[in-house]
Amino acid sequence: MNTMPGRHFLQIPGPTNVPDRILRAMDMPTIDHRGPQFQALAERVLAGIRGIFGTTNPVIIFPGSGTGAWEAALVNTLSAGDKVLMYETGHFASLWKRLATRLGLQPEFIEGDWRSGVDPAKIEERLRADTGHEIKAVCVVHNETSTGCTTRIDEVRAAIDAAGHPALFLVDTISSLGSIDYRHDEWGVDVTVGGSQKGLMLPPGLSFNAVSDKAIAAQKGAGLPRSYWAWDEMLEANGKGVFPFTPATNLIYGLAEAIDMLNEEGLDNVFARHQRHAAATRAAVGHWGGNGGVEVLCQNPRHFSGSLTAVMMPDGENADDFRKVVLENFNMSLGNGLSKLNGKVFRIGHLGDFNDLMLMGTLAGVEMGLELANVPHRKGGTEAAMDVLTKAAKTAKGA
Amino acid sequence: MNTMPGRHFLQIPGPTNVPDRILRAMDMPTIDHRGPQFQALAERVLAGIRGIFGTTNPVIIFPGSGTGAWEAALVNTLSAGDKVLMYETGHFASLWKRLATRLGLQPEFIEGDWRSGVDPAKIEERLRADTGHEIKAVCVVHNETSTGCTTRIDEVRAAIDAAGHPALFLVDTISSLGSIDYRHDEWGVDVTVGGSQKGLMLPPGLSFNAVSDKAIAAQKGAGLPRSYWAWDEMLEANGKGVFPFTPATNLIYGLAEAIDMLNEEGLDNVFARHQRHAAATRAAVGHWGGNGGVEVLCQNPRHFSGSLTAVMMPDGENADDFRKVVLENFNMSLGNGLSKLNGKVFRIGHLGDFNDLMLMGTLAGVEMGLELANVPHRKGGTEAAMDVLTKAAKTAKGA
Amino acid sequence: MNTMPGRHFLQIPGPTNVPDRILRAMDMPTIDHRGPQFQALAERVLAGIRGIFGTTNPVIIFPGSGTGAWEAALVNTLSAGDKVLMYETGHFASLWKRLATRLGLQPEFIEGDWRSGVDPAKIEERLRADTGHEIKAVCVVHNETSTGCTTRIDEVRAAIDAAGHPALFLVDTISSLGSIDYRHDEWGVDVTVGGSQKGLMLPPGLSFNAVSDKAIAAQKGAGLPRSYWAWDEMLEANGKGVFPFTPATNLIYGLAEAIDMLNEEGLDNVFARHQRHAAATRAAVGHWGGNGGVEVLCQNPRHFSGSLTAVMMPDGENADDFRKVVLENFNMSLGNGLSKLNGKVFRIGHLGDFNDLMLMGTLAGVEMGLELANVPHRKGGTEAAMDVLTKAAKTAKGA
Amino acid sequence: MNTMPGRHFLQIPGPTNVPDRILRAMDMPTIDHRGPQFQALAERVLAGIRGIFGTTNPVIIFPGSGTGAWEAALVNTLSAGDKVLMYETGHFASLWKRLATRLGLQPEFIEGDWRSGVDPAKIEERLRADTGHEIKAVCVVHNETSTGCTTRIDEVRAAIDAAGHPALFLVDTISSLGSIDYRHDEWGVDVTVGGSQKGLMLPPGLSFNAVSDKAIAAQKGAGLPRSYWAWDEMLEANGKGVFPFTPATNLIYGLAEAIDMLNEEGLDNVFARHQRHAAATRAAVGHWGGNGGVEVLCQNPRHFSGSLTAVMMPDGENADDFRKVVLENFNMSLGNGLSKLNGKVFRIGHLGDFNDLMLMGTLAGVEMGLELANVPHRKGGTEAAMDVLTKAAKTAKGA
Repeated sequence: MNTMPGRHFLQIPGPTNVPDRILRAMDMPTIDHRGPQFQALAERVLAGIRGIFGTTNPVIIFPGSGTGAWEAALVNTLSAGDKVLMYETGHFASLWKRLATRLGLQPEFIEGDWRSGVDPAKIEERLRADTGHEIKAVCVVHNETSTGCTTRIDEVRAAIDAAGHPALFLVDTISSLGSIDYRHDEWGVDVTVGGSQKGLMLPPGLSFNAVSDKAIAAQKGAGLPRSYWAWDEMLEANGKGVFPFTPATNLIYGLAEAIDMLNEEGLDNVFARHQRHAAATRAAVGHWGGNGGVEVLCQNPRHFSGSLTAVMMPDGENADDFRKVVLENFNMSLGNGLSKLNGKVFRIGHLGDFNDLMLMGTLAGVEMGLELANVPHRKGGTEAAMDVLTKAAKTAKGA
Repeated sequence: MNTMPGRHFLQIPGPTNVPDRILRAMDMPTIDHRGPQFQALAERVLAGIRGIFGTTNPVIIFPGSGTGAWEAALVNTLSAGDKVLMYETGHFASLWKRLATRLGLQPEFIEGDWRSGVDPAKIEERLRADTGHEIKAVCVVHNETSTGCTTRIDEVRAAIDAAGHPALFLVDTISSLGSIDYRHDEWGVDVTVGGSQKGLMLPPGLSFNAVSDKAIAAQKGAGLPRSYWAWDEMLEANGKGVFPFTPATNLIYGLAEAIDMLNEEGLDNVFARHQRHAAATRAAVGHWGGNGGVEVLCQNPRHFSGSLTAVMMPDGENADDFRKVVLENFNMSLGNGLSKLNGKVFRIGHLGDFNDLMLMGTLAGVEMGLELANVPHRKGGTEAAMDVLTKAAKTAKGA
Repeated sequence: MNTMPGRHFLQIPGPTNVPDRILRAMDMPTIDHRGPQFQALAERVLAGIRGIFGTTNPVIIFPGSGTGAWEAALVNTLSAGDKVLMYETGHFASLWKRLATRLGLQPEFIEGDWRSGVDPAKIEERLRADTGHEIKAVCVVHNETSTGCTTRIDEVRAAIDAAGHPALFLVDTISSLGSIDYRHDEWGVDVTVGGSQKGLMLPPGLSFNAVSDKAIAAQKGAGLPRSYWAWDEMLEANGKGVFPFTPATNLIYGLAEAIDMLNEEGLDNVFARHQRHAAATRAAVGHWGGNGGVEVLCQNPRHFSGSLTAVMMPDGENADDFRKVVLENFNMSLGNGLSKLNGKVFRIGHLGDFNDLMLMGTLAGVEMGLELANVPHRKGGTEAAMDVLTKAAKTAKGA
Repeated sequence: MNTMPGRHFLQIPGPTNVPDRILRAMDMPTIDHRGPQFQALAERVLAGIRGIFGTTNPVIIFPGSGTGAWEAALVNTLSAGDKVLMYETGHFASLWKRLATRLGLQPEFIEGDWRSGVDPAKIEERLRADTGHEIKAVCVVHNETSTGCTTRIDEVRAAIDAAGHPALFLVDTISSLGSIDYRHDEWGVDVTVGGSQKGLMLPPGLSFNAVSDKAIAAQKGAGLPRSYWAWDEMLEANGKGVFPFTPATNLIYGLAEAIDMLNEEGLDNVFARHQRHAAATRAAVGHWGGNGGVEVLCQNPRHFSGSLTAVMMPDGENADDFRKVVLENFNMSLGNGLSKLNGKVFRIGHLGDFNDLMLMGTLAGVEMGLELANVPHRKGGTEAAMDVLTKAAKTAKGA
């Protein structure tokens, strides 16, 4: 469908470049989802996906988008009018809040600057003030895809604990799962929301809820109506290796392959690779903007994202004009700035099935795009990125 | 993944045999769902799918299973406590009813015998009695996948009209769309529920709501909470060729190809082909059971399904034992009997991308399976089916 | 590319229905044929293919058609003007003879009737008469694809031995390899010629020479010019896991998968499956022709082919008219009659990745085709075939 | 099969990166090569391939490697003992000469320096001296894949004409066809030899002979034995849309797609793209070697190749050690130095389905590889390449 020569560079922060192994695994005849062959596959996938979330508890797999998994996390655990504490890390946190409002919940939004992750102190402060425990859940986006800021989930957990608050802890890992270190069990998360089309290297169409025992127990008192997203029937059926309604069979084929690929590389290696690419990208951006041009949106180095880098344009330059130049000249899709960042930011996705040379092609496309779009910048960003990569390679060799 | 030689015969009534053209169309790199290339694809698909439903109104495409489209039909048009009139055609009508109950609606169920489609007179009678118009919607399954009985939707429409009742008319076409004649606009349906994995020849993972103006208007008063399934944001975004959240990109590729394939063959030819295969299947079943053995479950010839045939086992014979013999000896999956038909019925799917010789392989597998499983039957059913097919071919030639 | 609904039935005697596993294995990026990854693949394939030929000696893999492997067998072992003894089993034996003539050899052709395989006594008689050992090679087609007659290679070997003749023994297994029992080493064959597109379940494009030590030694004295087909450079390079010129990389991917599939099923099971399908096909043909209509071309039961059945039309009926009816009505390709059998014979391929229900679809297509083409026949052939298959299934269960 | 993350960079000078469109086109069931559907495909491909060669005459398509097309060019036009004039442009010219020798021809080799293309004056001089017209053919490699030097075929044609010599003119375009401007008819070439796995973007397995009327006529007097490679049967069969022996069906599917893709982009655009990438590559190499390090092997700017760049290592540095570092660290395959260039040269393929960012990833991999392998070089080569690319983009925009 792509009519320009060569391979398209899909460098939005998801969907990501689906590897051939996964596309081919999905390109097989659909089978009977009630037969023994599918049952064996389901059991393999339902077991394997737990390791990716860092949990020994069940992970529920929905046919649907990540937005559906947001909804599922809420409707299974909450009741109409419940207060939920959310944190404005950026566009996607805002969308989740809007979704909560539409479902009849009362989200309270801690204001953020869209240039950093969550400040755990603010969470703790708010929870301490909630002596009546009206807040039923704390909802946080692990890696805010609109800004490239990653929240320290362990610190948020510690904040909740410090406040001695019984709220459920719900975390969105849509753009971090399988890319950035994440530990559902260790970090005491009750519901982790995930999607297929980022670090899992699949096309969109599957979404996930990893659930704690506390979350499972919360279903009983949760009054929001639910059926499609209801965990109870899903957990019961999954226990027998089936699904309560027709699963997205061919995406399940791909998921099995994706889990194998992540385990073959080793999750720690996967995470380190993403950190390396993020560091190289920031080195390039830093170089290009050395004279006061582009800059990395995220201002807190402890929150730098491993899976994407959002880049602020210099004043007066339109990010979408720049992205158009890049797409038309270099066959590369970059992410756009969302809502209040619209036109001001572009986003470089460096997650999923990705390697050093794909990154260098990507960064060269950005550097040449800046040139063609007449955006002020200092040449040499790609060289700066290569320094990061070669240093990492030398260190790896030394190790 | 199939370890027996040769091609698996997937003769459950959906998911169906996905044609290579569609699998290959899906086996392409995922693209930016916010870029111009995807927008062109979306517009093509959103336009093309209308013809398949027989509507000039919008059709909403969800990433999700058919069950989700059931839920969407209800949450966009109804409020907690609303009465809905449903009709017990079989297992799937019962599941839809259960879903309505879980969502907080009050379904009233007209009892059925699981051996025929809807009796429109009963609908008319009940609506006439509802002088206060408490019933907000009539929900009917067009083709009941558990029984192989197809309801005459035009007659149900006429019944509602005869009663002069303002209820919305919601129809499930999951196992009929693209296989059995269906006309959303002409038959005055308000919401048509569809899925990807049957007549549309796709893997599961997409579901549909075709919506009338009346249904769209009903959103305003509809009080059930909704977000993922909400039509409003979807319709607004679709108007610009985009989706409000990440669509199932690669399934959309497949859908574009499926629409092309159905139009290339011509919908009328598609429907005629399914009727021919259904008639041949019934001829075979009739022959096998001539001595009092198996029989077609559906007892009303006006309700015979074009997409599947459910077959009753003789007393004392277990349908699942028989299905296991067929699967293990002949590498064919047949549908099982659901809920109260469990063990008593098997179902032959003859829908989707299917032809005469695939049908004959299927029927031969059933006949040989009856033999191997020691189920009493009269040999020669496949010959009876061939008579139907050759007669049809001669007629077509003559025409 | 097929515009008729449902799966095409490719029932010519090769190319055969390529299984999805193999098509998908081939649908991967081409890699460096001089790199370590390809070398590992090459070594795996070069080792695995030996088992399929029943040899512990090298098997040479050419990018090319089976015709090329015929040429290779001759140019590596013979000199201009050499006498070779060939046997007219049918069209393909005749083509091989013509090829030998074009290369400057002097083939002597033992006349055959195209309705049986080789008569070993005639070979022995001719070799005994060749007291001067002018005949340098005996060339025989194992399974004559134009007639469906399989020669007993062990008997031909015995005949050569009985005559005490030193001629090389060259055998074409293009339509038998991986379908009909074959043993290069045990039967003392010097060069076995094979192709990819039949029992190996691959698309066309690879061909093979399995070579004995005697054949390898024969190269030295062989005066025919050769380069592309020369074994010496191939054997030397293969010894290092490489090829002397660019191999057909993606077909090699498929070959690796094919070898795995054959071994997973077990070669003996593969052979038995083909014999079962051949027997069922003959039962059907025998039934159809019971009143003097169609008949199996092969007249010697000891030579019945496991991979295809050629069927003689009744007098006055044209096989190609019949085949056209089948193709246009039933989306099935049958093999045509070749050279002197043109119009008189059609051929049913039942080899490769094939199973009972595919066969039944095939035979139903033939039976219905006979009906539509007004070819006199007795109905019930498919029932006769099913009797063979169910009996075999019962026996297998009993075993 | 690739176990490193991300996409492999296959930057050898062929096989090239096969685009998804082509791989998917090939990933379809094999069809009857004697049926009407294949015939339509064959006619389309046989017509379309002519435009790629720049001829209105037939182009013959063999299942086989490029080496086979070399052999075909010779055996169809020459007789044992014939003198042919060849030119030592590098390794592949030498292999063609060896092949000619093996076939019984008498090649005379004009010595070359492996750092430039053919000097037409030497051809003219030799032909003028051949007053008896003993030389029957002049054989030249258009683009010498071992050195990255492209001969001016029009100048060689002029030289032959200037000498008034009747020799046939045979040209190998294996690594130039579909990448570098080539005109079979206009340049008066008699046989053009091509392969599938370079500019045609296919896997290996097809090879080509474009033939002039003079070449076709030469068959009659040509005494070399031939059958598989014989043009006569091929031309006769192709005239009816078929092939005399089983074609490589699935590669033919891919070829049809490849021809479409080249025409969609426009051959002139394809050629310009390759020239741009070659210029950018040389800019990078020139920069790296500015201090006396690496240098472009080709010394004659009029002979710079558009499809690959061979790079000389500095004295004392081993090219294969460097290539190993690149493969292991950056998942990129570079071409090795062949025969006398072994260890001294590496080759960068920039041909086929390729674009600016793939090139930049490639060059970054080379630059980082030089760093990691401790090969002396000046940093900044990638920046130099980007200057070439952005200048070209600006010029294109201006146009």
